[in-house]
Amino acid sequence: MDTRIWLYLGMGFGVLSFGIALLIYRWVKAQDAGSEKAQKIARAIRDGAWAYLRYLYGALAGVSVLFGIVLAVVFSFQEEGFGLLRGLETAGAYIIGALCSAVAGYLGMSVAVRANVRTAVAATDNLNRAFNVAYRAGAVLSLAMVGIAVFGMCLIYLVTGDPEVVLGFSFGASSLALLAKAGGGIYTKTADIAADLVGKVEAGIPEDDPRNPAVIADNVGDNVGDVAGMGADIFDSYVASTVAAMLIGFTGFLTAPKEDQVFYTVLPLILCILGILASIIGLQLVRVGKNGKPGTALNMATVVTCLIFSGFAAILFFSMGWNIGALIATVSGLGIGVLIGFTTNFFTDDNFGPVRKTADIARSGSALNIISGVSYGLISTGPSLLGIAAATLAAYFGAEAFGLPGVYGVGIAAVGMLSLTGIVVANDAYGPIVDNSKGIAEMSGMGDEVVTRCDVLDSAGNTAKAITKGFAISAAALTVLALFVAYKEQIEQYLPDGKTLELSLLNPMVLAGILLGAMVPPIFSALLMLAVTKNAFKMIEEIRRQFREIPGILLGTKDPDYATCVGLASQGALKALVMPALLAVVLPLVIGFVLGPAALGGFLGGAIFTGIVFALFMANAGGLWDNAKKYVEAGHCGGSGSDAHKATVVGDTVGDPFKDTAGPSINTLITVMTLISSLFAPIIATVHLFGW
Amino acid sequence: MDTRIWLYLGMGFGVLSFGIALLIYRWVKAQDAGSEKAQKIARAIRDGAWAYLRYLYGALAGVSVLFGIVLAVVFSFQEEGFGLLRGLETAGAYIIGALCSAVAGYLGMSVAVRANVRTAVAATDNLNRAFNVAYRAGAVLSLAMVGIAVFGMCLIYLVTGDPEVVLGFSFGASSLALLAKAGGGIYTKTADIAADLVGKVEAGIPEDDPRNPAVIADNVGDNVGDVAGMGADIFDSYVASTVAAMLIGFTGFLTAPKEDQVFYTVLPLILCILGILASIIGLQLVRVGKNGKPGTALNMATVVTCLIFSGFAAILFFSMGWNIGALIATVSGLGIGVLIGFTTNFFTDDNFGPVRKTADIARSGSALNIISGVSYGLISTGPSLLGIAAATLAAYFGAEAFGLPGVYGVGIAAVGMLSLTGIVVANDAYGPIVDNSKGIAEMSGMGDEVVTRCDVLDSAGNTAKAITKGFAISAAALTVLALFVAYKEQIEQYLPDGKTLELSLLNPMVLAGILLGAMVPPIFSALLMLAVTKNAFKMIEEIRRQFREIPGILLGTKDPDYATCVGLASQGALKALVMPALLAVVLPLVIGFVLGPAALGGFLGGAIFTGIVFALFMANAGGLWDNAKKYVEAGHCGGSGSDAHKATVVGDTVGDPFKDTAGPSINTLITVMTLISSLFAPIIATVHLFGW
Repeated sequence: MDTRIWLYLGMGFGVLSFGIALLIYRWVKAQDAGSEKAQKIARAIRDGAWAYLRYLYGALAGVSVLFGIVLAVVFSFQEEGFGLLRGLETAGAYIIGALCSAVAGYLGMSVAVRANVRTAVAATDNLNRAFNVAYRAGAVLSLAMVGIAVFGMCLIYLVTGDPEVVLGFSFGASSLALLAKAGGGIYTKTADIAADLVGKVEAGIPEDDPRNPAVIADNVGDNVGDVAGMGADIFDSYVASTVAAMLIGFTGFLTAPKEDQVFYTVLPLILCILGILASIIGLQLVRVGKNGKPGTALNMATVVTCLIFSGFAAILFFSMGWNIGALIATVSGLGIGVLIGFTTNFFTDDNFGPVRKTADIARSGSALNIISGVSYGLISTGPSLLGIAAATLAAYFGAEAFGLPGVYGVGIAAVGMLSLTGIVVANDAYGPIVDNSKGIAEMSGMGDEVVTRCDVLDSAGNTAKAITKGFAISAAALTVLALFVAYKEQIEQYLPDGKTLELSLLNPMVLAGILLGAMVPPIFSALLMLAVTKNAFKMIEEIRRQFREIPGILLGTKDPDYATCVGLASQGALKALVMPALLAVVLPLVIGFVLGPAALGGFLGGAIFTGIVFALFMANAGGLWDNAKKYVEAGHCGGSGSDAHKATVVGDTVGDPFKDTAGPSINTLITVMTLISSLFAPIIATVHLFGW
Repeated sequence: MDTRIWLYLGMGFGVLSFGIALLIYRWVKAQDAGSEKAQKIARAIRDGAWAYLRYLYGALAGVSVLFGIVLAVVFSFQEEGFGLLRGLETAGAYIIGALCSAVAGYLGMSVAVRANVRTAVAATDNLNRAFNVAYRAGAVLSLAMVGIAVFGMCLIYLVTGDPEVVLGFSFGASSLALLAKAGGGIYTKTADIAADLVGKVEAGIPEDDPRNPAVIADNVGDNVGDVAGMGADIFDSYVASTVAAMLIGFTGFLTAPKEDQVFYTVLPLILCILGILASIIGLQLVRVGKNGKPGTALNMATVVTCLIFSGFAAILFFSMGWNIGALIATVSGLGIGVLIGFTTNFFTDDNFGPVRKTADIARSGSALNIISGVSYGLISTGPSLLGIAAATLAAYFGAEAFGLPGVYGVGIAAVGMLSLTGIVVANDAYGPIVDNSKGIAEMSGMGDEVVTRCDVLDSAGNTAKAITKGFAISAAALTVLALFVAYKEQIEQYLPDGKTLELSLLNPMVLAGILLGAMVPPIFSALLMLAVTKNAFKMIEEIRRQFREIPGILLGTKDPDYATCVGLASQGALKALVMPALLAVVLPLVIGFVLGPAALGGFLGGAIFTGIVFALFMANAGGLWDNAKKYVEAGHCGGSGSDAHKATVVGDTVGDPFKDTAGPSINTLITVMTLISSLFAPIIATVHLFGW
C-alpha cells in the first residue's frame, strides 16, 4: 500500500477538521450576543485583545522574516556545496509553521472573545446551553489547530519527502508559541495581580467590578494568555512530538528497506489522523444534563476519547498487520498521560489533603501557607516524573520486544500521548471563556442567578484545567525526550566517518553542558516572573493615580481609563520577552558552536530535566494555592474575610505567575531549545570550536 | 620517597590540629562567664542543646550499630567467598566515621554554648575582645574537625591500604551528618518561626524576650542547627571529597606502576595536610582593630588562607617534581570556589540590586516580595552553575594536558576547594555564637551598648555566612561529581569481563534513572519544610496556651515553661527524620538492585543536578529575604512597622526553612546517596534484577 495515501488522507482530515471548526464558529457567532451594555463590555475586551495581538504579531512577523532569511542562507551552504533549494525549503517551512501557529491562535481568540458574552447570555436561559456555547467555542480552537497542524505536516512531507524540512515547520510553530505563551502569560498576570491588589485589597471593590481601571486588561489577559498563548503552546508540542517521531523513524530505519523507512516516518502522521477522528467523535459526546455536572462531562470526554482512539488504533494495527511494538508504545504513552493527569489532581483538588492542609495552616499566616504550598508543589513532581519514567521504559522496551528501535518507541509514545490534543485543547480553552463570561455577567449586571451559573461552569473549568495541565506537561516532557533522541540521531547522521555521539554523563563536556543547561529553566522562569512583578507594580501605580485624580471612578459616575492599563500590559509584556527569547534561541547555538555537539547534548538534557521539574512544581503549587483560597472562601477555616483568607489570597497571588506565566512557558522553552538544536545539528556536527 | 611518611605526617597534623583546638577551648572556657542572670540563661540554652543532642545521638547510636552489623554481614559475602575481615573492616570504618562526626559536632556545640555568654560579657569591654572569643570558639570546631578527619582517614588507609574501607568511614560520617543537619535544621526553624509568629506578631514583644516560652528553644536551635548540624555537614563534604579523589586515584592508575598508584591515592591526603597548615596560619591572622570591621576580617581570612595554601601547594609540587596537572586542578577548584562565594554575595547583600528591589517591591505587599525573592533566588543559581562547570572543565582538561586521567583532576579540584574547610567552618560557626550572645545580652539586660556591639558582630557573621554558604554548596557539588565518577569506576571494577558502564543520556535505563533521581531533592526538601510547618504549628499552639493559661508570663512576673517548647522541637525534629532518611538510604539501593547499575548511575546524576539547583536556589532566596527585611528595618522603604516591613517579615519567615533547613540538607542528601551507591557498587555490579 502506497504510504502517500496516508498523506493525502491526512490532508483531507486536516481540511475536514478545519471545516468543522469553521461551521461551529458560525454557530457560536449566531448565538444571542445580549444587551447593548454586555456587548459594550465584550467589545472593550475584544478591542484590547486585538490591540495586543496586532502588536505581538507585528513584532513576530519582523522576527520571523529575519530568521527565515537566516535559515535560507545557512541551510543553502551545507553538505555538497551550495544548494539554494534546501535553504528555501527550510525557510519556507519555518515561516509557514509560524504562520499556522499564528492563525490557530488568532482563530481561537477570535471565537473566544465572541463566545464569552454569548455564554453569559445563554446562562440567563440555562446551564446546559451556556456550557454548549463555551465548550463548542473551545472546540473551534482545538479542531482548527489539529487540522492546520496535520494538513501542514502532511503537505510539507509530501512535497519534500524530507522530515528535516518538517522540522523547520515545527520550529516556526514553536518559536511563535514561545513568545505567544510567555508574552501572554506576563500580560495576563500583570493585569490580574494589579487589578486584585488595588481593587480588592486597597479599594475594597469586588472582582470584575467595572470601576476598576484594570478590569478590562484583566479580562483581555484571560484571552491572550489562556486562549491564544495556551493554544500556541499545545500546537507546538503536538507538531514537535510528531516531527520528532518522524525523524527518529527516518534515521532509525536507514538500513531497513526504503519502504519500511517511509512507513515508519509516516506512522506518526497516521496516528494524528486517528487522533483527529477520535477527537471529532469525542467532542460530539460531551453532554451535560439540564442541571448536571459540567466538570464530570469534561473529564468523561477525555477518557472516552482516549478509549475511542485506542480502539481505532488497535483495529488498524491488527487489520493492517502492523508491528505491535508501535501500538504498545502508543497506548502506554496515552494511558500513562491520562493517569498522570488524574494523579496530579490529588495535589490541586480541595477534596484531598494537600489543599486542605495548606488552607488550614494559613490560619497561622501567609508565611506558613506559602511554605506549605511550595512543599506540596515540590512533592507533586513525584508522580509525574515516575509516570514519565515508566512511559519511557514501557515504550522503549515494548518497541524493542517487537524488533523496533527502542528510541522509536519513545517518540511514538509522545505522539500517542498527544493524540488527545483535540479534546484537551477544547477542555482547556473552555476555562477562560467561562471565566470571561462570569466577568461580563457581573459587569453588565445580569443578576445573581446568572453569575452563579457562570460560577458553576467556571469551577468545572478549573478542575478540568488541573488535569489537562498535568497531562500537557507530561506530554511536553515526553516530546522533548523524543526530540532529544532526534537531536542525537541528527548529529550522528552528519558526523564524519560514522562516529557516534556518546552522551555519557561522565564526559566532561556533557557534564558541563548539563550544568549550564540546568540553569536555563530557572533563570527563564525568573525573568518572566520579574517582568510580572515589575509590570504589575507600574500598573498598580497607574490604577492608584486614576483613583486619586478621577474621584468619579469609585463613585461609579465616571468610566475609568481602561485603555492605559491595556497599553501598559501589552508593552510591558513584549519588552520583557527579549531576554528570555535570546536565552532560548541564542544560548543553545552558542553552546553548540563553541563547546560542540556533546556539550550541546548535555545542555539540552540538563534543561529538560530541571525544566520538567520546575514546570510541574510551578503549575501544581499555583493550582494548589488557587484552590486553597477557594476552599477558604467556601466557608472553611474561617471563611472569607478571616485571617486564613487573607493568607490564602497572598498564596494565590504568588501562585498566579507560577501557574500561568512561568510554569507553562517552560514547556515551550525546552521544546524550542531542542528544536533549534536539531535543526542546526547538520551544521553544528561539522563546525564547532572545541572538540568532544 | 615512601608515601607512608605522608600518612604518618597526616596523623601528626591531625593530632596537632586537635590539640590546638583543645588549647583554644581551654582559653575560651577561662573567659569571664558574667553575672548569675546571664549564666542562668546560658545554662538553660546549654541544657536544651544537650537534651536534644543526647536524644539525637541515642537514636543514631542504635541506627549506626544496626547498620554496622548489616555492613559487616554484607561485605563478608563477596568476591571470592566468605571473608569476615573485609566485612568487619568496613563496618568498623563506618562506625568510626559516625563516631568522629559525632565527636566533632559535640565538641563544636560544647564550645559554642559556653562561648555565647562569654562573647556577650566580653562585649561589655570592647568589640575586639568579643570578636576574639566568638571567632576562637568557631576555630575550636573547625580545627577539631579537620584534625579528626585527617587523622581518621590516614589511619584507616595506613592499616588497610584500601580506599574502599575509607569509603565506609566517609559513609559513616555522612549518614550522621544527614540526620544532624536535617534534624537540626527542622529544630531551629520550628522554634524560630513559632517564636517570631506568636511573640513578635501576636503578643507584640521583641525578639529574644525572656517572656516568650519559645525563646530558649530558639536559641538552642541556633546551636543544634547552625553549629552541630553545619559542622557535621562540612565534615561530611570534606571527608567525602578526599575519599572520592583517593578512589579515583586508586582505580585510575590500576595499570600504572604500583608506586604511582599509591602516590595518587595518597595525594588528596597530602593536600589535606597542606590545608590544615594553611588554616592554622590563616586563623592566627584574623584580626579586627578596636573599632574595625569584623566582616572584612572574616573575608580577608578566607582569601589569605587561600593564597597561603596555593603558595604551599606550588612550592611542594615544584620542589618534589610532582605532576603539575594535579596542581592546576587543585588551584582551579580552590580559585573558582572563592569566586563563586563572592559572586553569590551579589544576590544576598543589601548593597546590590536584588535585595533592594525585593525590599522596594514589598511596598506592594507580601505576594510581590515573595515572587521577587523566588525569582532572584532562581537567577542566583546561574553564576554558581557556571562556576562549577568551569571548574570541572578546567580541572579535567588541566589534568589531562599533563597526562593524568581527566576525572582524577575533577576529584582533586573538589579536594582543593575544600582545603579551605578549616577557615570556612570557623567563619561559619562564628555566626550562631554571636547571634546567641546577642540574645543573651538582651535577655539578661546587659544594656544597649553591648547589644549594639553584638549586633555589629552578628551582621558581620551574616555577610561571611552568605559567602561561605555559596562556597559550601559549590564544594559539595564538585564533591558529589567526583563521587559520581568514583561510583562509575567502582562499578566497572566489579563488572564481569571488563565491561564498562556507559551512562549515556539516551540509554532508557539511565534516562529513567535520571527522572527518578531528579525528584528526590525536591521531595526531600518538601518533607523537611512540611515538618517545620507542622512542628511550628504545634509550638504556636503551645505558646498561645501558655500565654492564655499563665497570665503572669506576659506581665513578667512568672517564668514561662521553656522546657515544653524545647521538648516539642526535639521530638518533632527526630520524628520527621524517618521518611527523608529512608529516601536517602533505601531508595538508591532499591533502584540499584532492581533497575541495575546504569539506572542507579542515572538516578545519582538526576539527584545531583536538581539537588545543586535547589540547594543554591533555596539558600540564596532565603538569604535575600532575610537581608531585605534587615534593609527595611534599617529605615528604607518605610522602615520598621511599615507595610513593606510586614511584607518582608513574611518573606523572611518563608526564607527561614529554605536557607536553614531544606537548602543545606540537600548537600548532605546527595552526598549520602552517592556514597551508599559507591559503597554497595561491588554488590550491585553483580546482583540486580533487570539488566542494562
